[in-house]
Amino acid sequence: MRNQRYEQGWKMLERIDGDAGKQVTEALRDVAPDLARYAVEFPFGDVYSRPGLGLREREIATVAALTALGTATPQLEVHIHGALNVGCSREEITEVIIQMAVYAGFPAAINGALAAKRVFAQRDERTKE
Amino acid sequence: MRNQRYEQGWKMLERIDGDAGKQVTEALRDVAPDLARYAVEFPFGDVYSRPGLGLREREIATVAALTALGTATPQLEVHIHGALNVGCSREEITEVIIQMAVYAGFPAAINGALAAKRVFAQRDERTKE
Amino acid sequence: MRNQRYEQGWKMLERIDGDAGKQVTEALRDVAPDLARYAVEFPFGDVYSRPGLGLREREIATVAALTALGTATPQLEVHIHGALNVGCSREEITEVIIQMAVYAGFPAAINGALAAKRVFAQRDERTKE
Amino acid sequence: MRNQRYEQGWKMLERIDGDAGKQVTEALRDVAPDLARYAVEFPFGDVYSRPGLGLREREIATVAALTALGTATPQLEVHIHGALNVGCSREEITEVIIQMAVYAGFPAAINGALAAKRVFAQRDERTKE
Amino acid sequence: MRNQRYEQGWKMLERIDGDAGKQVTEALRDVAPDLARYAVEFPFGDVYSRPGLGLREREIATVAALTALGTATPQLEVHIHGALNVGCSREEITEVIIQMAVYAGFPAAINGALAAKRVFAQRDERTKE
Amino acid sequence: MRNQRYEQGWKMLERIDGDAGKQVTEALRDVAPDLARYAVEFPFGDVYSRPGLGLREREIATVAALTALGTATPQLEVHIHGALNVGCSREEITEVIIQMAVYAGFPAAINGALAAKRVFAQRDERTKE
Repeated sequence: MRNQRYEQGWKMLERIDGDAGKQVTEALRDVAPDLARYAVEFPFGDVYSRPGLGLREREIATVAALTALGTATPQLEVHIHGALNVGCSREEITEVIIQMAVYAGFPAAINGALAAKRVFAQRDERTKE
Repeated sequence: MRNQRYEQGWKMLERIDGDAGKQVTEALRDVAPDLARYAVEFPFGDVYSRPGLGLREREIATVAALTALGTATPQLEVHIHGALNVGCSREEITEVIIQMAVYAGFPAAINGALAAKRVFAQRDERTKE
Repeated sequence: MRNQRYEQGWKMLERIDGDAGKQVTEALRDVAPDLARYAVEFPFGDVYSRPGLGLREREIATVAALTALGTATPQLEVHIHGALNVGCSREEITEVIIQMAVYAGFPAAINGALAAKRVFAQRDERTKE
Repeated sequence: MRNQRYEQGWKMLERIDGDAGKQVTEALRDVAPDLARYAVEFPFGDVYSRPGLGLREREIATVAALTALGTATPQLEVHIHGALNVGCSREEITEVIIQMAVYAGFPAAINGALAAKRVFAQRDERTKE
Repeated sequence: MRNQRYEQGWKMLERIDGDAGKQVTEALRDVAPDLARYAVEFPFGDVYSRPGLGLREREIATVAALTALGTATPQLEVHIHGALNVGCSREEITEVIIQMAVYAGFPAAINGALAAKRVFAQRDERTKE
Repeated sequence: MRNQRYEQGWKMLERIDGDAGKQVTEALRDVAPDLARYAVEFPFGDVYSRPGLGLREREIATVAALTALGTATPQLEVHIHGALNVGCSREEITEVIIQMAVYAGFPAAINGALAAKRVFAQRDERTKE
């Protein structure tokens, strides 16, 4: 079950999401382990590994889309962490989220900003420890 | 009615969207002219004019969000033009769109790619003329 | 198949939508006639017939929701007609649509305004005839 | 207020959802009791009672749609119970949810799988008691 | 930073939402203060302040849209308060929400009704104190 | 570029969608050929090839989801063909679509039924030829 796409995806996932990838894999283990595997292979093994777009731009795109959709708060938080992990600044992330007020309305942007606030607080907490 | 936010927004809109801004303003003139004005003032006068995120990154975010939402094809086409106008490559734009298969599913990504195909063809056509 | 809910719904539908109800019933006749029947019985026989909210307010609510969702342009056009038929002014309808920029973003509001523009033009055309 | 559609719908609802129907009716009693009644009459009295599609297939369709929409987690959980109650296996349900990664993206599928995990755990808990 | 649009918007926001506006401004203060400012200026300073549609109708439109979208429960609750604050009755609000079953499905309407139930209970609680 | 997942996916795609798979591959060839490849490998090579759910049930799930989402009409038409190709009856497909009125509202169901009408007409046309 461990193939090249998975191995490549897992490395990419660790680089972007840190522990979050492991947590999703854990959470899905007993209900849909193959979904956890696909969620490594296709997004990270196939897509994020592609040349042609930098990881900072990829995370900007993902934060934008998840903020606009408004249906996937846990994944938005994971990717705000991811954006910070690949070198986006907090300011860049909040700019992306503010911009979503234009395309998906103020509630989507406000809920996205509150997700960013939670993520930033988590990271401040870790730094203190 | 012409204020500083509008003037600043209009310049930004011309830089990003070229003629498309004028066309939307024209189209809305007799039905909702203030909506056309707001669509310059807030998105372009307030948001896109903000420092803290580059225009290339802003257009990547917008193309991502509109591809994922799947409800605004005309605006997606305008912003694929916009992304090219501010310096994104065709490859970068298609990478953003392909990535949306992960977050919004394959139909959204395929429909986004077909929008990009139409925009690229329009620009090839213009170049020939 | 013609019951009291249907009869009451059909009268309400005629009052609100004029010919549009007949057209939907026609269009669905050979593929899903019961869906056409349900679309009279439940929305118009049950819901719009309820006391407690005026028809103008009901159409304002529907125009708002369909503009915000952005996935049902034909039905939005039918209900812009409906709003006018039950006494909303063109200005009130465009105000509702402009307001949706706040809750669903500018593309949704602009696409809603262009739907209103088409409906208003149809009615101007009819008046000329 | 108790009519044939309601009676037929209630029986169908009990067969599919077990106690969940009663809980929704309870929850809505003081705020919108007619909505609770409609939620029995139309979905269960009219639609699920129709011949032409088996209950297993109906629940597969509902689990698919609610997973894809991503806006109705409580109702998704109710219908995962429902799918099990009418004879779908856990494997069939997780297959439907995994498939939604294709049409609505990985976050929708992952959140659907976590809903299934919660439902399966509830049922394991009941069995133990 | 305090301009005429903001001042006008803030007064409108206080009239409609009472304390909720202050709470959002507080919550966003350290993560995206300009988003809080925009959320006053554009929706309330520009849009709600427009003549041509009454505040009751504006809140009906907003409750309808947020119920139908199903992605912004906190904002829906704020605007159910808002609708009551500008003179809508509880019955009118629940009618709008019930009607959304037609346009966005039963789960959206049921979740909207449960939001209304929570808001009504909060207000009953306040009255008791 | 032709690997086992692609080969298996292509066979599955041909079985389900007939010519539609080739058309999408053609359409995307010059703009995003890898998206066309992924759209074979992951949905059809990985997901539809899984045991544990029949192809009829898989197509029922897909028709339900695409009808409910309302953002992917071309793909909905492809999968109505697909459902018929793997043995669903026209009646079963329209039942799934009617049912979506419950979960995504009447406009989504009506637009889905009109898509089914177009597909059924195409197939009647082919039969005549």
